[in-house]
Amino acid sequence: MAQRDIDPELRRDLLTGGWTILAPARSRRPGGGRERRRRGPCPFCPGNERLTPPEVWAESEGPRPKDGPGWNIRVVPNLYPALIENPGAGGKAGRRIPARGYHEVIIHSPRHDLSLERMDPESAYRLMRAYRLRYRELCKHPWVRQVLVILNHGREAGASLEHPHTQVFALPLVPRAVREELGSWRRAALRGCPLCAAVEEARREERLILENGSFAALAPFASRQPYETWFVPLRHGEDFSRAGEAELRGMADILSRVLKGLAELLDNPPYNLWLHSAPCDGSEHAYYHWHLELIPRLTVTAGFELASGLFINPLPPEEAARRLRGLTG
Amino acid sequence: MAQRDIDPELRRDLLTGGWTILAPARSRRPGGGRERRRRGPCPFCPGNERLTPPEVWAESEGPRPKDGPGWNIRVVPNLYPALIENPGAGGKAGRRIPARGYHEVIIHSPRHDLSLERMDPESAYRLMRAYRLRYRELCKHPWVRQVLVILNHGREAGASLEHPHTQVFALPLVPRAVREELGSWRRAALRGCPLCAAVEEARREERLILENGSFAALAPFASRQPYETWFVPLRHGEDFSRAGEAELRGMADILSRVLKGLAELLDNPPYNLWLHSAPCDGSEHAYYHWHLELIPRLTVTAGFELASGLFINPLPPEEAARRLRGLTG
Repeated sequence: MAQRDIDPELRRDLLTGGWTILAPARSRRPGGGRERRRRGPCPFCPGNERLTPPEVWAESEGPRPKDGPGWNIRVVPNLYPALIENPGAGGKAGRRIPARGYHEVIIHSPRHDLSLERMDPESAYRLMRAYRLRYRELCKHPWVRQVLVILNHGREAGASLEHPHTQVFALPLVPRAVREELGSWRRAALRGCPLCAAVEEARREERLILENGSFAALAPFASRQPYETWFVPLRHGEDFSRAGEAELRGMADILSRVLKGLAELLDNPPYNLWLHSAPCDGSEHAYYHWHLELIPRLTVTAGFELASGLFINPLPPEEAARRLRGLTG
Repeated sequence: MAQRDIDPELRRDLLTGGWTILAPARSRRPGGGRERRRRGPCPFCPGNERLTPPEVWAESEGPRPKDGPGWNIRVVPNLYPALIENPGAGGKAGRRIPARGYHEVIIHSPRHDLSLERMDPESAYRLMRAYRLRYRELCKHPWVRQVLVILNHGREAGASLEHPHTQVFALPLVPRAVREELGSWRRAALRGCPLCAAVEEARREERLILENGSFAALAPFASRQPYETWFVPLRHGEDFSRAGEAELRGMADILSRVLKGLAELLDNPPYNLWLHSAPCDGSEHAYYHWHLELIPRLTVTAGFELASGLFINPLPPEEAARRLRGLTG
């Protein structure tokens, strides 16, 4: 909202093929440097709506003025966007492209201290509906290839604001983490969906944490970090935008219960939670199975992870699942 | 040294193809949970040699008792190893293999507070020689595929002990980060070495930080984080074990000068520094070019990095190089 920064751009590393988003505007956000959280009024609390860019969507009980109070869920563009709708021209023969996209924030509720696991079931379900709504809307842009829905909880997990919120990134390319999944799933698809198989295997190998009518929560076989958890819809489907109402209710229920268990077991740990769905690039990915992944941030990843691309995990997932199972009732 | 933990193992994720090292022994190390640094005497200080496993190698001026004081550089096995020489049998058809390998610590000097950039040139050169020595030794094991040399500085960068030290990991497989480099370099090799080209490009595009007779330090085009720096030997070569004395002196010099600049500019930031050399798997990788990479840990990586595999960097590398250039004299 202050001076205009250089537009964000995507740069590709010739040595690894990996992309970085160069987003100078992000340096001005709270916590963008080494300082602590921002001070001053919370821009996500009711009454402070003028502190965010104009809202994109909101849910309310009755009529209310746009960008005024009275909402239950509110969606705004990120004030420090990593991607913007109309960036300047790029260049350099495909190694440097404009970071064209959207970067939104879904404010979970008017309450500054109401984390997801303590929302009532109906409000949590409505939040999942807001996820699906923004996912659907952003996928409609023909040049958007991937939409990522990401919840960062706690400062050590990168949340620069405390008020519970979720970020939605619409990207002009399929990012590496999804490309890797697509690659191995395509190779595995002849033997059936590997994520459906992972649920079966988790049941057999005591890595299942919880199941409800539509979702399973499991500790994956090669968990990267202690208490890594996957949330898998029991009905195979590639596309989150086609999730039904029962699935959204099941998703709200299983997230709430596992997060409650983690909060109790680990004293409200910081965590990252994200949703992976097939790219919205117009092609079919019938072998893909949308899901959510969660990693609590209990340890500092060090040079080994950067140097190798592997993780070191001190806690066997069988043990993590055992500890969590009793606490998710 | 206390109870025997379950042996470490490598597990492969069927959905992404990525490997995790499951190393229960690591949970007992200082900082392995959420607690702060360990208390009590520093196991890397002279006089406390009994607090580490028996030493593997040491450099001293004159004769001294093994595992006694009087050393200048000391190499010991990691007390909380991620890989061990003789792990129990694995299983599960290639998805689960014993984490066979070595995990060593090179203690830089007897001084608890002497960070690399403040060592005198001769001592820094001798430390680089110790890197090469351990690299060579560990590569000799026929089942070792990759040796990684990694320096973590500061608690936020994963260093659980303050006393300056470097870790050496000998792995039974080529890790993802190196496989990715090998893949794109092989594809690019017809047009010449991409790292030699990156040095040329950095000179042209004002991303060069510093050069001496044998090394260049540069801010890479697609820097993942503010002040990411690559250290590239000017003589193309795939294999760190064949680095000559002049190269080791040049490496000590350029590391010291850039680290001094970073310490001044950013008030002694935490960082990870690691060395990538071609796999020691018996095959030729003539197109590969060994090098070091450094990333200061100034920001918390959040859910976006995990969800996408991409980084968001608020500082253009051209600007990072400009700021560092004046401080590396």
